[in-house]
Amino acid sequence: MKVGVLGATGYAGQELVRLLHRHEEVKELYLSSSSVAGENYETVYPHWEGQNVGILQDEDIPDVDVLFCALPHGLTAERTGGFLARKMKVIDLGADFRLNSGEIYEEWYKIKHPATDLLKDAVYGLPELYREQIRGKSLIANPGCYPTATLLALVPLLRKRLLQTNYLVIDAKSGVSGAGRGASLNTHYSEINENFKAYGVASHRHTPEIEQELSRAAGIPLTVNFTPHLVPMTRGMLATIYAKVSEGISEEDLRSCWLDQYEKEEFIHLLPPGTWPQTKFSSGSNHAFLQLTLDERTGNAIVISTIDNLLKGAAGQAIQNMNLAMGWPEARGLKGTALWP
Amino acid sequence: MKVGVLGATGYAGQELVRLLHRHEEVKELYLSSSSVAGENYETVYPHWEGQNVGILQDEDIPDVDVLFCALPHGLTAERTGGFLARKMKVIDLGADFRLNSGEIYEEWYKIKHPATDLLKDAVYGLPELYREQIRGKSLIANPGCYPTATLLALVPLLRKRLLQTNYLVIDAKSGVSGAGRGASLNTHYSEINENFKAYGVASHRHTPEIEQELSRAAGIPLTVNFTPHLVPMTRGMLATIYAKVSEGISEEDLRSCWLDQYEKEEFIHLLPPGTWPQTKFSSGSNHAFLQLTLDERTGNAIVISTIDNLLKGAAGQAIQNMNLAMGWPEARGLKGTALWP
Amino acid sequence: MKVGVLGATGYAGQELVRLLHRHEEVKELYLSSSSVAGENYETVYPHWEGQNVGILQDEDIPDVDVLFCALPHGLTAERTGGFLARKMKVIDLGADFRLNSGEIYEEWYKIKHPATDLLKDAVYGLPELYREQIRGKSLIANPGCYPTATLLALVPLLRKRLLQTNYLVIDAKSGVSGAGRGASLNTHYSEINENFKAYGVASHRHTPEIEQELSRAAGIPLTVNFTPHLVPMTRGMLATIYAKVSEGISEEDLRSCWLDQYEKEEFIHLLPPGTWPQTKFSSGSNHAFLQLTLDERTGNAIVISTIDNLLKGAAGQAIQNMNLAMGWPEARGLKGTALWP
Amino acid sequence: MKVGVLGATGYAGQELVRLLHRHEEVKELYLSSSSVAGENYETVYPHWEGQNVGILQDEDIPDVDVLFCALPHGLTAERTGGFLARKMKVIDLGADFRLNSGEIYEEWYKIKHPATDLLKDAVYGLPELYREQIRGKSLIANPGCYPTATLLALVPLLRKRLLQTNYLVIDAKSGVSGAGRGASLNTHYSEINENFKAYGVASHRHTPEIEQELSRAAGIPLTVNFTPHLVPMTRGMLATIYAKVSEGISEEDLRSCWLDQYEKEEFIHLLPPGTWPQTKFSSGSNHAFLQLTLDERTGNAIVISTIDNLLKGAAGQAIQNMNLAMGWPEARGLKGTALWP
Repeated sequence: MKVGVLGATGYAGQELVRLLHRHEEVKELYLSSSSVAGENYETVYPHWEGQNVGILQDEDIPDVDVLFCALPHGLTAERTGGFLARKMKVIDLGADFRLNSGEIYEEWYKIKHPATDLLKDAVYGLPELYREQIRGKSLIANPGCYPTATLLALVPLLRKRLLQTNYLVIDAKSGVSGAGRGASLNTHYSEINENFKAYGVASHRHTPEIEQELSRAAGIPLTVNFTPHLVPMTRGMLATIYAKVSEGISEEDLRSCWLDQYEKEEFIHLLPPGTWPQTKFSSGSNHAFLQLTLDERTGNAIVISTIDNLLKGAAGQAIQNMNLAMGWPEARGLKGTALWP
Repeated sequence: MKVGVLGATGYAGQELVRLLHRHEEVKELYLSSSSVAGENYETVYPHWEGQNVGILQDEDIPDVDVLFCALPHGLTAERTGGFLARKMKVIDLGADFRLNSGEIYEEWYKIKHPATDLLKDAVYGLPELYREQIRGKSLIANPGCYPTATLLALVPLLRKRLLQTNYLVIDAKSGVSGAGRGASLNTHYSEINENFKAYGVASHRHTPEIEQELSRAAGIPLTVNFTPHLVPMTRGMLATIYAKVSEGISEEDLRSCWLDQYEKEEFIHLLPPGTWPQTKFSSGSNHAFLQLTLDERTGNAIVISTIDNLLKGAAGQAIQNMNLAMGWPEARGLKGTALWP
Repeated sequence: MKVGVLGATGYAGQELVRLLHRHEEVKELYLSSSSVAGENYETVYPHWEGQNVGILQDEDIPDVDVLFCALPHGLTAERTGGFLARKMKVIDLGADFRLNSGEIYEEWYKIKHPATDLLKDAVYGLPELYREQIRGKSLIANPGCYPTATLLALVPLLRKRLLQTNYLVIDAKSGVSGAGRGASLNTHYSEINENFKAYGVASHRHTPEIEQELSRAAGIPLTVNFTPHLVPMTRGMLATIYAKVSEGISEEDLRSCWLDQYEKEEFIHLLPPGTWPQTKFSSGSNHAFLQLTLDERTGNAIVISTIDNLLKGAAGQAIQNMNLAMGWPEARGLKGTALWP
Repeated sequence: MKVGVLGATGYAGQELVRLLHRHEEVKELYLSSSSVAGENYETVYPHWEGQNVGILQDEDIPDVDVLFCALPHGLTAERTGGFLARKMKVIDLGADFRLNSGEIYEEWYKIKHPATDLLKDAVYGLPELYREQIRGKSLIANPGCYPTATLLALVPLLRKRLLQTNYLVIDAKSGVSGAGRGASLNTHYSEINENFKAYGVASHRHTPEIEQELSRAAGIPLTVNFTPHLVPMTRGMLATIYAKVSEGISEEDLRSCWLDQYEKEEFIHLLPPGTWPQTKFSSGSNHAFLQLTLDERTGNAIVISTIDNLLKGAAGQAIQNMNLAMGWPEARGLKGTALWP
């Protein structure tokens, strides 16, 4: 088994390297970086000292069985046709194959989609919701972090018509690592530390991805209010979701629906009533945690989910997808609980 | 002018001391602490070394002109009648006089209100909304931090009937100092750092206070979904609010309403469109910052406000109230922008 | 293989559980906690939800092959004789068996040592320095975190007489998790965050442990200036050490000495010249990183080492010791690099 | 009184603006920024919204009475001759006039000093140590932050010959704001948060500045080991200093020396024995805190000092220098204790 990673020095890329390095099926690992090709991986990330991960390649990656693309949007789609022609399985951690529609992609990402003909071949790689469609697939769109946190909570409830669809509020919070390793005022320590803010208000690019998948679950087109916030911490993501329940639906109905969907899942955990998710429950692991309540005073459900944005929200889920695509046990290489404290 | 502070060693108490120490009208300062009476203030807080703040008194405070009570709920109300009889002006930073109804107090605070007869004499001390009622008053209920952030944003809009009242979501976030100086697992560094969580979901005690004041503004009883979250930072508070606008209302209508209410206010700032509040804008100051947008896709307004929870959300606002009660310029002793970075 | 953990809900205890849970030789795990016996482990630590770790036992632990004691000092020594009589191997993460002398123990820990007769049977469990003495041993004193960081750096240099012994300065810095899970003002988020301080100046209990082992390496009694500091972060430890080199010794001599000692070690990494250790290089892993320079201007060596205080500084090293005691590969269950970022 | 600030949008510049804005003698304020000239100050720093600080000028500053230069090294010295010719008083927060020797400047800063003829006219602006020389001066070199923390602790002791001069260790720790507002991997939140490291080991540019002033105090040339570290916090600086005392010197001698020097100082505080400085004691204020002990076991003094790197370590001290240069009360505009918590 040969595996390649494009964009191996970004934060998601580095997490892929960490997970692949210990994955028992992975025999050869090709790491590529356009910015620091030729460097030893340990020079870029000295905590890898002594692990012999190897030299970073340029973008001419050799034939591999599975290729992870952790690149800025637009760059992957340009080259995917070529990769597929070489019989590689492509798992894209970027946004290029998440949206079904080239028009919507262009509207939100402000560039023309480079390969609309491939959109129909891609599967949305959220294993707990689309497991069977992912098995054996060659082009997998790894979901965004905010959509993952949101969809795990809402899709089962919408599929069963337990929620009204005309007023969904998703108030989401993320650690800073989601912004990547690029240096800017938006990732500057002194500007972020001891500070909290919303960003991308009513305009974040994960909005159409969330709406696409929630609409699919609900069976009708819907829109959401999605507001991401930046938390002064490195890792972790939590979504607080507000929804009106359908008439006659009780808190117990909502819990039962989740239980039906998730009780056998290895990475999705329904906490006991009254125990609310904390981002640290997931930190460093591929586990997601869910909780909800039905506020009797207002008649609305409050739903909270948490994941590690770099694992279940990126690299961990990508490994799940590789395992499914290759026919291996889905949790291979992903065991282990959060690092606490 | 003699001023007293009950509970002078808690975080809000210490901020009161800092503000009163530099306030030009305050000539004598009596500081009380039930737990460390007899200690020098500098022993409790060594950063006061050399400032000669004095010895902490027990609770038998002498006659003062203004008495600030920064005590756990219940303790202030028991003694307020006595304080008022001694012609002191009482500014309560706790919850005892915020709610108009003893029954609602008992429902949420789980103790019988010790002085319901005084409730009608208390004024809700949010100067920008109730300035004229506060002037010269002797019993002032200093608002909670979450209610302050919420009401500054919503009350003007509800008074003008610009928002629908049947689905208000207030997703609020606070730094840890709001939990006070008591040591517990909930304030333990290793449990809070690099972590983010909701707490008091559908049950936080600031809920009835918010609803009371929003209902008063709207002219009809309303309920809200209010969810507080704990941010891994010491100071700061931000509320993200979702509301349906009334039919025909534009973003411009909302902004004009705010402008009418706040353009002459010294502490309330409407940011230019596109600039969203950050908690650090307020940190260390009495200033509040507001922003909103009308999301064309969903037809809902997204409103964000930020304050420093210990200043505009507690001690700073209490000084404003003292200034109003005593007939001094309202901003006296409160000048100054945030500490940045 | 049955393994027990006394003190399984403290931070070091929880890390032991995490490491033992995935250790392939461990078949049964008994977890004990005096404070929450009878509780499900998942109730205490909800991030373990769904992992079936089991119920916390009281202190009457059954016969196990290896028993880890993560208890306050004094409590382990009282019971160790009994454990050894039951043929258990005891690995003490506390301080009871680290010092050779009951008098010195009493001087620094302010209690009479409960089992001085066992001191001679204990081995100081720092595998990279005393590997052969640890193999097969039944009573292992797991070193303190500060001593581990210090000794890894200095012992090889002192054994080879490359440093003078009359003026050693160890300026050490630790994350807050080293203070344990107990709630106090010293671990209160708002008092620690955005703050940095020294503590235990000239009086920290790890001082005699460091001096004992450095003296042993140097072959003569020596004293050190050891000053620990508290860093506003959860995990990580870094020691900055200042030492005069012996006459004629070059930077290259120092590096060669380290290389001789450590080049085959799996967990000790000598960084390339100019790359200085950061605590995050170790965070979440059992790896230690070292660097030094000889300051030509002053003729002194500056030596820096970093470890994760809860892993190489506590639970990780304890697993290494178990592996050695049981004759298993030393790195079993400890693979993996730091979590980054 | 007209005052100008060159480099008004950096962190030290912004603190100058904050302090000057409330300074009662300052009537007109000219703010300059080469990078964002023409912008409103509130656009760069929205927390200034509503304060009418004004438009940022280019570098052609008009005639002012006092000009603060907060520019990268080299840029100020080029222009200082011209400023002085225009009868402005110049207070340089950069490094250009701190060193007496152009050669040493060139050796450490790697550029030729642009105005060595002016070096003899500059005074080293540490008021508590050189007050009389600063009064009325026209060219003041505001000290570096690390030198300020170090010199306040050591200069009195060296002047009185209480310390040996052949082995001084200064292990210093700083918050991230000292690195300025420029975005780089070294200030990237995810790389700094939950991380601690040394930097500039044996090579930091504040070394010759410290040595120059300590040598002056001791009366003989000396060298030091100075190691700065980066703490995951925004503000604050703490120096832990190790020194051998001269023969026969007691802890009491050291304390008496400090007391003689500092007992009337408004900004320097000697803490009671056993209370050790924390960076937060100074945070947001111009106050410095000192403590020491003589370690009986090793015979060495351990000395700790703390300041706010942006205030006593930069902008606050610069205001002190302005007050001295202009003949105003030295503490004008600088009152106030730290912000806690």
